Amino acid sequence: MKTRAAVAFEAKKPLEIVEVDLEGPRAGEVLVEIKATGICHTDAYTLDGLDSEGLFPSILGHEGAGVVVEVGAGVTSLKPGDHVIPLYTPECRQCKSCLSRKTNLCTAIRATQGKGLMPDGSSRFSYKGQAIHHYMGCSTFANHTVLPEIALAKIRDDAPFAKACYIGCGVTTGIGAVVHTAGVEPGASAVVFGLGGIGLNVLQGLKMVGADRIVGVDINDSKAEWGKRFGMTHFVNPTKISGDLVAHLVELTGGGADYTFDCTGNVDVMRTALEACHRGWGESIIIGVAPSGAEIRTRPFQLVTGRVWKGSAFGGARGRTDVPKIVDWYMDGKIEIDPMITHTFPLERINEAFDLMHAGESIRSVVVF
Amino acid sequence: MKTRAAVAFEAKKPLEIVEVDLEGPRAGEVLVEIKATGICHTDAYTLDGLDSEGLFPSILGHEGAGVVVEVGAGVTSLKPGDHVIPLYTPECRQCKSCLSRKTNLCTAIRATQGKGLMPDGSSRFSYKGQAIHHYMGCSTFANHTVLPEIALAKIRDDAPFAKACYIGCGVTTGIGAVVHTAGVEPGASAVVFGLGGIGLNVLQGLKMVGADRIVGVDINDSKAEWGKRFGMTHFVNPTKISGDLVAHLVELTGGGADYTFDCTGNVDVMRTALEACHRGWGESIIIGVAPSGAEIRTRPFQLVTGRVWKGSAFGGARGRTDVPKIVDWYMDGKIEIDPMITHTFPLERINEAFDLMHAGESIRSVVVF
Repeated sequence: MKTRAAVAFEAKKPLEIVEVDLEGPRAGEVLVEIKATGICHTDAYTLDGLDSEGLFPSILGHEGAGVVVEVGAGVTSLKPGDHVIPLYTPECRQCKSCLSRKTNLCTAIRATQGKGLMPDGSSRFSYKGQAIHHYMGCSTFANHTVLPEIALAKIRDDAPFAKACYIGCGVTTGIGAVVHTAGVEPGASAVVFGLGGIGLNVLQGLKMVGADRIVGVDINDSKAEWGKRFGMTHFVNPTKISGDLVAHLVELTGGGADYTFDCTGNVDVMRTALEACHRGWGESIIIGVAPSGAEIRTRPFQLVTGRVWKGSAFGGARGRTDVPKIVDWYMDGKIEIDPMITHTFPLERINEAFDLMHAGESIRSVVVF
Repeated sequence: MKTRAAVAFEAKKPLEIVEVDLEGPRAGEVLVEIKATGICHTDAYTLDGLDSEGLFPSILGHEGAGVVVEVGAGVTSLKPGDHVIPLYTPECRQCKSCLSRKTNLCTAIRATQGKGLMPDGSSRFSYKGQAIHHYMGCSTFANHTVLPEIALAKIRDDAPFAKACYIGCGVTTGIGAVVHTAGVEPGASAVVFGLGGIGLNVLQGLKMVGADRIVGVDINDSKAEWGKRFGMTHFVNPTKISGDLVAHLVELTGGGADYTFDCTGNVDVMRTALEACHRGWGESIIIGVAPSGAEIRTRPFQLVTGRVWKGSAFGGARGRTDVPKIVDWYMDGKIEIDPMITHTFPLERINEAFDLMHAGESIRSVVVF
């Protein structure tokens, strides 16, 4: 079939909107009509040529929502008409990781996904006879795409696509880090570094689980208003305090935070986040993606005296199991998404969304097909 | 009263055996007759002048066992004749840390203990009229010492002092890191770096809780025999393998270890220990004490993909609650101590114990009064 897609033919060039060829689903695969897709920093990271493993030409996009059109042989958990969210972290429920009960990092299709291919080692997309790579196993910048059954979360039919798509990455990453990775308990204190989209979702996750003191840290004062909107109780601009930031945060949290979250990708901030944790039990969770080669560092004494350093990918969420629950939380009003969707575009204007992101003028832009 | 003690009059000098003056217990304090004490690397670290916060003159020693002689006003949990192990990490059961349920690092008397003083800010020891500092709140290199009630674990009467004293530090530090800090489950795989006394106790802790694959790593081949004696299933000498140590350990543990333990204090080894953990869930526990100013480092990707970095002090054990249980485990034969006590001396020969330790010729030396 033919479908409309925004193709990244090469790095550092705008996406081109073209009709591509899409093969139907093979065994274990599902054809999905994408109804909406968010534009995430990770897409920009690849498009800007910063990801040394980035592949071109490819169809980017990994934060979508849509409807099942056709299923391949052997697909049992989905049928045409089902509403779905594509999962760049699949959940096969059979690999060592899925069966460990300890991680969401399913390894079933990791090797081929990293190569921009379907699990059988081939691509379903082509343009003028040339294969186009899949991206993060999703390629949601296409009106139709093909995914493995294990990489689709079935969600309720009444969730609006243009909002639910954000759960495919940003919302789950932020809220999941609170709920799944950290397991924050009611009454806890927390500090969130970086109040972009992920940081805001961490904030509202903390509010949802009943944290008491929710401190937001950002060097941009304009983020304070956004933070308060999503549950932040205290705002700190590091450029406006005198003295040591760690000491300031330790005092503000009554001895150090029970949990801290880095949503900046800056390794120096990651260190601050760890050291602002409470002695004895504070846990610091790294969410942000650091530049290639950058390293975190601290004195081991920080850990020996009880602080814990961990990280979170896709919010520690198991895609097929936990993503539908987060959709429920949204539909039930436990979390908000609508105010974070600051811009909506048709596919033809997708490059404007990248421009807004680079200018720091959007929280989340969504393309609606 | 007078009591015999090994006094550290200054750094880098042998201890001197003299009769010191000891004041009786004040309110909330307990006079203990020390029956036996281990000699630990931490004592040597202070005596050798490596601890910038070391105080002199002082009576070192923090790994003892003895009998209560007299209790001060208000002491309710102990009476003369009770067998006890002094605790350099006390357990007041009332401070924020004790009540957190998340840490063993009681802060009740931390400030004065760090200054070599009793909680009321004074010392009980003196020599020729000059005050002598307490050490780690214990000072077990004296035949009698005074401790706060909250810094004494009451243990069963039939445990031999010359063995049980080792539970006051090394045994609990190693076994507790497995049981309390890591919470290792049956069937787990683990790698232990550094097979000194702490490492051997980590090994036997792993054996006790039913770990499957227990890998010991040491650059000294002579440690292999010791490791096997305490539950090690595989030995790796990093100087004798070709290629990358992390890759070797990952292969040996079928994809990375569920738990790794650093018992070396070397920050490069700490990094190896983290990176040898299994993607998705492996936890690395730092036990060793690093040189002042040394820093651990790694790429944050290691944490984002699920590895957890933490530390352990006194094995995460709450002194009054957990130490008596470890004494029971020893008496019940669940763990061994006797073979680790390689040397026993009278107090007069305590300096020989330090010489043996520096020469790497002892696992644990004990002084019996």
